[in-house]
Amino acid sequence: MQKDTRKCNSVSNGTSLLKRLSKTTPSKIILFVMDGLGGLPIGPADSTNINGVKGKTELEHAVKPNLDALAKQSVCGVVDPISPGITPGSGPAHLGLFGCDPLEHEIGRGVLEASGINFPLEENDLAVRINFATIDKEGKITDRRAGRISTETNIKICEDLSKIKIDPIKIFVKTVKEHRAVVIFRGENLSEEIAETDPQAVGTLPLEPKALSKEAESTSKIISKFVSEAKKILISHHPANMLLLRGFAKPPHLPSFQENFHLNPAAIATYPMYKGLARLVGMKVLELKGGNIEDEIAALEENYNSHDFFFIHIKGTDSSGEDGDWERKAKVIEEADKFIPRILKLKPDVLIITGDHSTPALLKSHSWHPVPIILHSPTCRVDDVDNFSETACVKGGLGRIRALEIMPLALAHAQKLEKYGA
Amino acid sequence: MQKDTRKCNSVSNGTSLLKRLSKTTPSKIILFVMDGLGGLPIGPADSTNINGVKGKTELEHAVKPNLDALAKQSVCGVVDPISPGITPGSGPAHLGLFGCDPLEHEIGRGVLEASGINFPLEENDLAVRINFATIDKEGKITDRRAGRISTETNIKICEDLSKIKIDPIKIFVKTVKEHRAVVIFRGENLSEEIAETDPQAVGTLPLEPKALSKEAESTSKIISKFVSEAKKILISHHPANMLLLRGFAKPPHLPSFQENFHLNPAAIATYPMYKGLARLVGMKVLELKGGNIEDEIAALEENYNSHDFFFIHIKGTDSSGEDGDWERKAKVIEEADKFIPRILKLKPDVLIITGDHSTPALLKSHSWHPVPIILHSPTCRVDDVDNFSETACVKGGLGRIRALEIMPLALAHAQKLEKYGA
Repeated sequence: MQKDTRKCNSVSNGTSLLKRLSKTTPSKIILFVMDGLGGLPIGPADSTNINGVKGKTELEHAVKPNLDALAKQSVCGVVDPISPGITPGSGPAHLGLFGCDPLEHEIGRGVLEASGINFPLEENDLAVRINFATIDKEGKITDRRAGRISTETNIKICEDLSKIKIDPIKIFVKTVKEHRAVVIFRGENLSEEIAETDPQAVGTLPLEPKALSKEAESTSKIISKFVSEAKKILISHHPANMLLLRGFAKPPHLPSFQENFHLNPAAIATYPMYKGLARLVGMKVLELKGGNIEDEIAALEENYNSHDFFFIHIKGTDSSGEDGDWERKAKVIEEADKFIPRILKLKPDVLIITGDHSTPALLKSHSWHPVPIILHSPTCRVDDVDNFSETACVKGGLGRIRALEIMPLALAHAQKLEKYGA
Repeated sequence: MQKDTRKCNSVSNGTSLLKRLSKTTPSKIILFVMDGLGGLPIGPADSTNINGVKGKTELEHAVKPNLDALAKQSVCGVVDPISPGITPGSGPAHLGLFGCDPLEHEIGRGVLEASGINFPLEENDLAVRINFATIDKEGKITDRRAGRISTETNIKICEDLSKIKIDPIKIFVKTVKEHRAVVIFRGENLSEEIAETDPQAVGTLPLEPKALSKEAESTSKIISKFVSEAKKILISHHPANMLLLRGFAKPPHLPSFQENFHLNPAAIATYPMYKGLARLVGMKVLELKGGNIEDEIAALEENYNSHDFFFIHIKGTDSSGEDGDWERKAKVIEEADKFIPRILKLKPDVLIITGDHSTPALLKSHSWHPVPIILHSPTCRVDDVDNFSETACVKGGLGRIRALEIMPLALAHAQKLEKYGA
């Protein structure tokens, strides 16, 4: 028995085990994530709803011959993003999919936003999400999104705010999109234990960036100074005459895909946050020609020979679910379905189709419901699930698993894992 | 809360809980393990393969009326030997079945082999697996198994090698079977952190038994000396003119069945390794009249009154799977099936039928695929699984469990567990 083997023995968690057992091989894995995929039926299952449709989830309603055929030739199941009953944010949900325990590693929104715009965060940086807002003469918030100013306006504002100096801290203010930006404070001993200033309501004053611990007091002063300086500059930028700060966060130390799984991974996503999440675990984010699923699949095809793991992120299923648009969510699934044959043509050794969590249009929000999954591989034990839906997948051969178990299964089916023990 | 209660609370693993809750009762448990039971369909499930058989696993193909009838009257499920995606060796796979966490306890091959031949290992012994091999004039390996010499020849060679003296170490060289043997070094401060000398290839020189840590340096010198002395002796034993060393290991400290579960267990197995594993957890290994399943069942019948737990190990399902012999594996299952009525005639309180892992003939190796399980007991909640197969069991009442959960279920159904808490 070798030394490194023994060292890992004492660590019971699965990630260390994978680090020890995984090996680089030519086989390829595609993880195709439809954000917020799982849904809930509109109308009771045994009756007909107002549209004359029998109660069906978005996925059940969608016409998706390719996904159904794939489910039939694969092993299926349902996935709890974290554990039963827990509704995850996008960060923890993706960490789980990436085989990184979301209960051990937490990613603050500030870090997500900064990563999403490709800002090169350093170890001690403190990243904070900015929402530009409108306040009235009394300082009370009248619009928490500053009338959704244009991204162009946002860029000009951020240039102005970047001039703020608070020695010895370096400050970077960067545009994300519309009313959203991110500020990065660079310096020693900065703390993320600062209260958010967004009261999440209009008609009230913004909150103070209070220190939530003794260690955070000096940071709190810096943030307060920043807010008061910013306020002076923003007077001339009405309706964006105020900023609200959320998600104070320092970069987490996540093990990379290279380190943990001996993979050379690539990410294909259209939204900044998902690119950011992928970068945090060591993925190369591929350039896209546009923002459609078609562009994502084209990027997969063009880069297929250069990587052995691909994460593809489809956003539309989640945003339509969040909007409560059951019909549009089904349409996004139908759109994605059309590209399945092009993915299969690449002959990946393992193709996984799932979501990061459920976003039922009925709830207009993320939910805790398990997400259906298809695992397609020549080494899979095909079950008798004959269509891709929440209900059918419950009876699949994978049973009910946790998102954290997807990467070990993907690696196993791609035959990238050594046997454990003699 | 009482003091001992609080002590147990801090231990998160289930074994401590079982130690606390289990009690001795007259009820009897039989754990019938078909090694490598789970399989994969030959040919895709939706087509017909070259033999004109629709894609079926070995288990689905086997004619096994008794197992099917038993599944119908039992609760079924599928078992991950370790966790989803992890392919286990025989050691960790059996530890899981024996309710002993395979991620906490690791057993090296040397120890497995020594236990398998009933060698009374002492606490500080270092056990190492020997493969006799053939080398050419340049010392390069030409056959890693020395033409599979007979066991009789092996015995003579081991007698010669036992004459090697390296003071103050005691050396025991013992025959296992054909080209396989085991050497036990007894002395102080021996380390298992020694590199294996088998290069796992022909045409190259054997490797040096290098120390993998500073502490192992003195052990490395002893092993090197042993190899050079052995080489001199083996000159006269061509084709077994060299030995290759693997699996340097010291005995693990495993909790016994007596201690953990208050059971008086017996093991019925034909292969040394499984007898060895059973002994490591305190099982009495029963004598068999021969090496067939029939002999195993006869031993069960004869000793039925003397124990309250029986582990029965069927090897043929694994060896046929490893050989890629789908048809033979199905035949072994059919052979085992014939003895189910004799087992049932004993009226065990709990009969569990499962495997330690999957060995699909398609892969010719152990695999990570979950293994079907039948749990038969008057206290089981019968589900609607109506045949014993991987696909049918997925829908069983046990769902997808881990091997480590089998012992608690067995004890519970045998009504050997007290209630937890007031």
